[in-house]
Amino acid sequence: MTGVRSLGESLLRPRSVALIGASDDRSKTTARPLQYLRQAGFAGRIFPVNPRRASVLGEPAWPALEALPEVPDHAFILTPTDGVADAVRACVEAKVPLVTVLAGGFGEEGPAGHAREQALAEILAGGSTRLLGPNSIGIVNVETGLTLTANAAFAEPELPKGSLFVASHSGSMIGAILSRGIARNMGFAGFVSTGAELDLSLGEICEAVIDDPAIEGFLLFLESIRHGEALHRFALAAAARGKPVIAYKLGRSDQAAELAQSHTGAIAGEDGIADAFLRDIGIARVETIDGLIEGGALLRRTPVSHNGHAPQVAVVTTTGGGAAMVVDQLGVRGVSVAEPTPATLAALQSAGIAAAPSRIVDLTLAGTRPAVMKAAIETLAAAPEFDMVVAVAGSSARFQPDLLVPAIAEAAAAARVPVAAFITPDAPDALLQLTAAGVPCFRTPEACADAIAATFARRPAKPRAAAQPPGRERMLDEAEGYSWLAARGIAAAEHVVTTASKRQSPIGYPVAVKLLSADVLHKTDLGGVILGVVDDEGFGDAVDRIVAAVPQHAPEIKVDRLLVQRMVAAQGEVLLSARRDPDAGVLVMLAAGGVLAEIHKDRSLRLAPVSIDEAWKMIGEVKALRALEGYRGRPRGDLAALAEAIVSLSLAGPELVEAEINPLLVLPEGCGVAAVDAVVRIVEASSQMQRAAV
Amino acid sequence: MTGVRSLGESLLRPRSVALIGASDDRSKTTARPLQYLRQAGFAGRIFPVNPRRASVLGEPAWPALEALPEVPDHAFILTPTDGVADAVRACVEAKVPLVTVLAGGFGEEGPAGHAREQALAEILAGGSTRLLGPNSIGIVNVETGLTLTANAAFAEPELPKGSLFVASHSGSMIGAILSRGIARNMGFAGFVSTGAELDLSLGEICEAVIDDPAIEGFLLFLESIRHGEALHRFALAAAARGKPVIAYKLGRSDQAAELAQSHTGAIAGEDGIADAFLRDIGIARVETIDGLIEGGALLRRTPVSHNGHAPQVAVVTTTGGGAAMVVDQLGVRGVSVAEPTPATLAALQSAGIAAAPSRIVDLTLAGTRPAVMKAAIETLAAAPEFDMVVAVAGSSARFQPDLLVPAIAEAAAAARVPVAAFITPDAPDALLQLTAAGVPCFRTPEACADAIAATFARRPAKPRAAAQPPGRERMLDEAEGYSWLAARGIAAAEHVVTTASKRQSPIGYPVAVKLLSADVLHKTDLGGVILGVVDDEGFGDAVDRIVAAVPQHAPEIKVDRLLVQRMVAAQGEVLLSARRDPDAGVLVMLAAGGVLAEIHKDRSLRLAPVSIDEAWKMIGEVKALRALEGYRGRPRGDLAALAEAIVSLSLAGPELVEAEINPLLVLPEGCGVAAVDAVVRIVEASSQMQRAAV
Repeated sequence: MTGVRSLGESLLRPRSVALIGASDDRSKTTARPLQYLRQAGFAGRIFPVNPRRASVLGEPAWPALEALPEVPDHAFILTPTDGVADAVRACVEAKVPLVTVLAGGFGEEGPAGHAREQALAEILAGGSTRLLGPNSIGIVNVETGLTLTANAAFAEPELPKGSLFVASHSGSMIGAILSRGIARNMGFAGFVSTGAELDLSLGEICEAVIDDPAIEGFLLFLESIRHGEALHRFALAAAARGKPVIAYKLGRSDQAAELAQSHTGAIAGEDGIADAFLRDIGIARVETIDGLIEGGALLRRTPVSHNGHAPQVAVVTTTGGGAAMVVDQLGVRGVSVAEPTPATLAALQSAGIAAAPSRIVDLTLAGTRPAVMKAAIETLAAAPEFDMVVAVAGSSARFQPDLLVPAIAEAAAAARVPVAAFITPDAPDALLQLTAAGVPCFRTPEACADAIAATFARRPAKPRAAAQPPGRERMLDEAEGYSWLAARGIAAAEHVVTTASKRQSPIGYPVAVKLLSADVLHKTDLGGVILGVVDDEGFGDAVDRIVAAVPQHAPEIKVDRLLVQRMVAAQGEVLLSARRDPDAGVLVMLAAGGVLAEIHKDRSLRLAPVSIDEAWKMIGEVKALRALEGYRGRPRGDLAALAEAIVSLSLAGPELVEAEINPLLVLPEGCGVAAVDAVVRIVEASSQMQRAAV
Repeated sequence: MTGVRSLGESLLRPRSVALIGASDDRSKTTARPLQYLRQAGFAGRIFPVNPRRASVLGEPAWPALEALPEVPDHAFILTPTDGVADAVRACVEAKVPLVTVLAGGFGEEGPAGHAREQALAEILAGGSTRLLGPNSIGIVNVETGLTLTANAAFAEPELPKGSLFVASHSGSMIGAILSRGIARNMGFAGFVSTGAELDLSLGEICEAVIDDPAIEGFLLFLESIRHGEALHRFALAAAARGKPVIAYKLGRSDQAAELAQSHTGAIAGEDGIADAFLRDIGIARVETIDGLIEGGALLRRTPVSHNGHAPQVAVVTTTGGGAAMVVDQLGVRGVSVAEPTPATLAALQSAGIAAAPSRIVDLTLAGTRPAVMKAAIETLAAAPEFDMVVAVAGSSARFQPDLLVPAIAEAAAAARVPVAAFITPDAPDALLQLTAAGVPCFRTPEACADAIAATFARRPAKPRAAAQPPGRERMLDEAEGYSWLAARGIAAAEHVVTTASKRQSPIGYPVAVKLLSADVLHKTDLGGVILGVVDDEGFGDAVDRIVAAVPQHAPEIKVDRLLVQRMVAAQGEVLLSARRDPDAGVLVMLAAGGVLAEIHKDRSLRLAPVSIDEAWKMIGEVKALRALEGYRGRPRGDLAALAEAIVSLSLAGPELVEAEINPLLVLPEGCGVAAVDAVVRIVEASSQMQRAAV
C-alpha cells in the first residue's frame, strides 16, 4: 500500500485490481475481465480471487481478499447476487478504496432487491470504500489497458484510442457504442457502466475523471435524469474546462419513460424537464444513436453560442437530392439553412463558382471537381452570415474518396466555422478518411441534422441554484402569496382581504370573491370562487354561496376569510411557475393558459435564473403567445412585462419551494401583467419568522 | 421494325436503344450509358449516334437517327440542352416510341427554361412518342442488363438483383439508393429517374411497369406530390396486385418545401396534405433514408390493416438498452409496444422463459442462447395480442451471427405475424445474413421504428374521387350554402333571410345579423357581422351599422339582403371542410376552431370518402377535441353528430369545388352540430340550373 489516491485515479488508473469470483471457465462472463485485461496489456497488478481454485485461467488465484499481499486500488466483485454483501463487507473492512459490483438483483427487483440494496448501503456507510454499481458491467481505460469489464464487446483484439469518455447507465450500450465507433474508426478514451448507482452516480464518476489527461470530452447514454445535482456539478466542471458533453437520453415517449422507471428504480423525470435541464447545463442532447456516435466530433469544433443570434448553416453540394434531405431535416429541427448574401454569391463567382441564389449552393454547374468543392467551402466558411458549413457529397465520395476527402479536409482545417460532411451514397471509405482527417461526417441526413441541432441547442452552463436552507415548509395563502410576489416585483390584480360577514365589496365592482385559506389548493373545486360579481346584491349572494358550498365539499375547512379581487380585462393569460426539483434544481415554466394549452403541452422550461434575453426566448417558444404578438391583427399583450415577470420569479431565492401563478394575466401593451391566483410554498428558516412572508 | 410494344415494354424491355450524342471520351458523363450497357451485358441492339465520329468507344457509330437500320424502341438523348429539341423532333418524326432526355435547363430555369419546355411540349404534341425527363438520368432494368443511365453509381461491376423497383424524382438519389442497398446485400429490380416530368410522370411510369414479372413492389423518392392523379392510379393498381409501395418524400419542413418548389417548378403541396394523401392511397411514407432502404422488406411482409384496431408490437431482447431505444422510438411515433398478456407470459414460462411482466420481454435471465431467442419469438408471434414481433439482439449478433441469425430466421419464417430485427452493436455480418434470410432488419432504432410506424400507418387504398363534370364554377351565398349542406344532412343553426329595411328579428332573440352576399368571402372584415343581438333596439342598431360599415370597406357591395341566425350555446367549435385538390383529389379536413388551433396546426386530413370509423379517428387526431370528450370533468360535446357530419360532407359529390364550414358548432351531447357560417363553391353542369343549388 502506498499514498492516498483520488477517486479518479482509483477509477481510471488503479495500480492493482482484484477480481473477486473470477472464473476459470473461459466461456463464463466472470472469466472475461481477466482475459480482457491480459489481452489489453494492463500493466498493473491483477489478483484473481477464487476460494475454490488455486489457479484461474493459468494464473495463480488467491483464496480471499484478506490473503492478498496488498490492498488493491479496485476490487471487481464478480460473484452472484447472494455473495455480493459479504464480498463488499470484506472490501470495506480492508479499506479497498473502490469496488465495482457486477451482479444485478438489487434496487430494481422488488422488495427482496430493495432489502439487498439497503443492506449494501449499510455496509458501505461504515467505511471509506466507494461503490460502482451494483449491476455495473465495469470500467475501461483504453490508454492503460484497464479493460476491467465483463461486456463481451471488449473481446475486440485492439481497442482504438480516442479522446471521448463514454459513461452509460446501461451496461450493454457501452459495447454497442464501442463497436459502432470501431466501424467508423473512432476510438474512445474509456468507458464506464454506472448500473444502479447505489453510491457513485454517473455525474460523480465523470467529475472524478474530468482532469484525466486522456479525456477531452464526454459521451453519455442516459436512461433517465437521476442524481441531477452530481450531473450538474460535472457539467459545470466540463464547461469550465472546455470539455464538451454529448448525451442520448431515453424517455422521449411515455412508454419508454415508464420503462426507465421500472427498470432502474430511479425517478424518471418528465422528458421536457430533462431536455431543458440538459440544455441549461450545457449538454448537447441528440435524438439518434448515429448522432451520438457521429456528433461528438462536431461538438468539439463548435463553440457554445453566446452571441444570441439564431445560428445559420450553409449547405454546399454536388447532389441536389442529398442536400435537400439535409435541409429538410435541419428545418424539421428548427435549424435555419440560409441563402448566401449577394456579397457571398459574388465571392463564389470570383472563385469561379456560379451558384443560383438558393438555400443550397449547388456546384453542378460549376463542376463537381474536388477543387471546386474546396473553394466553395472556403468561401462559405469565410462568409459572416454562416455559423457552420455542411458539405453534401455525391457519388464522387464513393468512387474517388482520395480526391474529395483531402479537398474537404483542407478547407475544413482552415475554416473560421465548423465544417461537417454528409455523404449521400454508401461510402464507407470516405467516412473513414474524413474521420481520420478530423472532419465531422455523417452517414444519414437525420444524424447529420440531429447532431447539428443538438450542438446549437445547448446553452452556456448555468450554476446550480443555491441550496434550500433548512427549515419548515409552509404554504402561503393567496394574499400572502401576492405579497411575496409583489416583493419580487410581480403585481397582482387589486385585491383586499375581508370576512364572510361583509355584504359589499370594499373596492367597488366588478370583482371576484374567493375563499382565502392556505389549507385549500383547488378552491374552485370546492365552490370557493365566484367570478364576475357586479353589485352589492351579487356580492352578498356570492358570499352566501361560498359559505354554503365549501363545507359541503370539505367540512374541515373554516370559511371565515375572503379575498376580493378586481376583475381586469386581459389580452391573454399564462401560467408562470418556479419550483425546486430534486434533480434539476429550480425550474421556471411558462405555459399558455387554459385547457387547450395543457392538451398541446404548449410551454417553455428553463433552469433559474433566467436572463431577460432567455425570458424573451421562452415567450417565443410558447406557440399560443403568438396570439399576443399582433397575430392576424389582434391587439398586442404586454409581453415586455411578462418577460420581466419571468426574470423576477426566476430570482426568487433559496426559500422557494414552489410558486405557481395561474393565471397570470397579460394586459394590453404598456399595462403590465397581473396575477389573479397564486400558490406559493416556501421554507421558513426560523420559527420567529412572521407569517407574512414578505 | 416489328409489332407495337406497350409503354412498360419500351421502358423496361426495349429490343433496341439509340444513344444520341454518345461520347467517345470515357471520362464524359455522356459516355457512361454505352459502357454500363456493355458491362451489364444488355442483349438488345445498341446504336450510338454521333454525327462527328465514325466510332464511339470502339463501336461503330451512326451519323443520325435517320441512318439507323431500324426505329429503336428507346432513344436516350445525351446532347446538351441546346440540341435537345432537334433530337426529340427527329425521334417524333421517326415514331420512336420512347425518348429520354438527360439535359436539364428546361422548366426549372427561369423564362428561357420555360420557353424550351414549351417548345418541347409542342414537338411532342404532334406524335406518338413519349418522353422521360428532361433532366432524367435514365432507367435501369437489372434483370435484362438495361443500364440505360448516366449516373456514375451504376459503374458498379455487378448490380444485385432484387424485387423492388426504384422510382425517383431526383437523379442522384437512384445512385445513393443503389449503393446503400448494395452495402446491405439488397438488390433492386430496376430504377428510373423521372426528372422534370414534362410528359411521363412517376405515377404513369410505375403504372406502366407494374405487371413486369420482375417487380414485386416499389420504392419511391419524391421531392413533392405532383401529377397526383397518375400517382393515385398507380397506387390503386399496386394495391390491387398486392405490390407494396414505400416512399420517402422531401418537404416536411417549410424550408425544404420551398426548395422543392423552386427546384422543380412543380406545385409543392403542403406536407400535411401529402401525408394524408399517401396514407389514403396505401403508400407507406417513411421519414428516414435508412427506413426507406431497410423498410421495404418489412412492408412486403405486413398486411394493410383492415381490422381497425391499433396495432401492438412485442419487443424481445437480450439487451435492455437496445430494446429501450426501440420502444422509445416507437412510442414517439405513436406505435404501442405492449406487455404480453398473462396467458402469453405463461406460454413463455412453458417454453422455459421466465420473463417479468414488462413492455420488453428480456431474455437476460432465461439466457441469451439462440434457442431461447427462437422460442421467445415463436411464442410471441403466436400470441393473439401482437401484430408484429421485434427481436433486439446484442453482442451475440456481432460475435456469433452464425448461431443467432438462423434462430431468428427460422422463427420468423414460421411466424403468423411479421418479425423484424434491430441489432444494437455494429454487426454488418448479422445484417447481411438476416437480409439474405429474408428477415427485415435495421441498423438503428430510429429506422426500425420509422419503418414499423410507416407500415402500420398506411390505409387501404381509396378510389379516386369522381372527376368534376364540366360547368361553370359558382360561389353560393350563405343561405344557399346552408341549403346545400342541409340536403347532405348537415344542419345549420336556425336562420332566415331578410332585408336591410327590417327593424326586428323574425325569429326572436338572441341572434346574429349578417350581410348576405355571394360576392363577399370575409364579411366580418367588412363590418358585415354583428353577434349577440338581444332585442329589437339592438337589431335596428345592428342593421344600421352593417349598412354603414360595408360600403366604407367595399363600395361595390350592395347591402340589401341580411341573414339573421339564432345564437346557440355550444360545447366547442370546429372547422370542417372538403375541397378538390388538383393532385390529391377531394380532401376532407377537420380542425379545431379558433386562432390557437391554427397556431398549433391542430387538424386531421383524409381523402374523401370518409367512413364513420375513419371519421372517429379524425376526431381522435384533433387534440383540442379532447376537451369535448369529458376531459377533466368538462361536459361532453356531440362528437357522434360531428362524425356523421364528416362522413356526410365527404360524400358531397362531383359538383363540389370547396365547402368550408367555419365554425361548425358542436352542441352538447345528443343535440347535434350546427353550422354558423359556410362558404360553398360548386360547379354547375348546365345554365338551366336554378341558382338555389339544392
